[in-house]
Amino acid sequence: MKATVLFSGGKDSGLTALLLEPFFDEIELVTFSFGQDEAWRVAEQAAAELCHPHRTVVFEESVLDKALEILISTGYPNDALNYVHPIAVETLAKECEFVADGTRRDDRAPKMNYSAIRSLEDRLQMHYLRPLAGLGGKTIRAMASRYLDFEEELSEKYPASDFEVGLRYALVKRYGQAEVDRIFPSKHTHTRVIRRKKIVQEIKGQEDQACQGIQSES
Amino acid sequence: MKATVLFSGGKDSGLTALLLEPFFDEIELVTFSFGQDEAWRVAEQAAAELCHPHRTVVFEESVLDKALEILISTGYPNDALNYVHPIAVETLAKECEFVADGTRRDDRAPKMNYSAIRSLEDRLQMHYLRPLAGLGGKTIRAMASRYLDFEEELSEKYPASDFEVGLRYALVKRYGQAEVDRIFPSKHTHTRVIRRKKIVQEIKGQEDQACQGIQSES
Repeated sequence: MKATVLFSGGKDSGLTALLLEPFFDEIELVTFSFGQDEAWRVAEQAAAELCHPHRTVVFEESVLDKALEILISTGYPNDALNYVHPIAVETLAKECEFVADGTRRDDRAPKMNYSAIRSLEDRLQMHYLRPLAGLGGKTIRAMASRYLDFEEELSEKYPASDFEVGLRYALVKRYGQAEVDRIFPSKHTHTRVIRRKKIVQEIKGQEDQACQGIQSES
Repeated sequence: MKATVLFSGGKDSGLTALLLEPFFDEIELVTFSFGQDEAWRVAEQAAAELCHPHRTVVFEESVLDKALEILISTGYPNDALNYVHPIAVETLAKECEFVADGTRRDDRAPKMNYSAIRSLEDRLQMHYLRPLAGLGGKTIRAMASRYLDFEEELSEKYPASDFEVGLRYALVKRYGQAEVDRIFPSKHTHTRVIRRKKIVQEIKGQEDQACQGIQSES
């Protein structure tokens, strides 16, 4: 079984990959780009650090056009994020049986509702996994820190392959900084995976003699 | 870090423990009982198979009384499940920093709402984890099958430590089979973990030479 993870290079999608690793023969990391910046290179580096194959998919230009139009007309990011994210998920869902992302319990957007998820799974006969859907921000930080070194960066200064940061960059380019200041929160940050700590994920609880077979046989 | 998992002995709470293993130094499995049956022994056996320490907590009798009262008056299981489950979570949350359960994306009950979860975490300074909250039933089955042999059993024939089955048994004892038939769906099933397959959870993707450190250093 292969799991395909929507990957920004940050700690959330990084932890998503780590959580799934023991359950799949292969993890593939996929980064979506609006084709406006080189931020996918950051994700590519993070993927190499995580030791999983990586590829970048560029959205059709019409997707960016429509997303920017939604941003400008609504004046806030959520609807645009909720437009872009399901397109990315569905793009992968058409070719991959298990598609995961790093959307979290506390995220307001992007978030697909329950009916949309069931529809996606039924139409395309695939599995959509949100391993962080039941974890809070503090919990994610604690779990990710066990295997990953990551940095928090100001999104206005550092590009990243998350949709919010990608839209900020595209918006600046096409409509100028004033529109970004109007629509996006200031001091938005994202995380970037710097290093995977060289620790093998281990099964716990094998001190019990009867349980040692789990450790020694494979 | 220790994670305490609400454990029925079934594949859902079993998979919950497996998902968390690599991220915690210790996993503790805790089964709640209404004190009316010996179903906790099934969970105890499953816990031994999973190779994690296990304990049973018996609800106060007033909790069972109130749950049965809710069952009788509403005529369906959901409200009673939503009454019992947060009491179990909160009982553990008072003494454990990381408390997890196997509630799933597709479950209607028990399910704590977002505000109740945030309130719990803030009041008690703890983490409440629902690792299966973003996974569908088919996905859970596929992932659990990798490490666990489990059986599906008719709840009316086999006792189990999940709240629904526990309430069925207590209801029969106190009010007779007719009330169970009125309130609970017929042919309800639960799963029971029979065996943990002797496979080490492995990190994938180390074929790349630069990534072999992850495998060899620990």
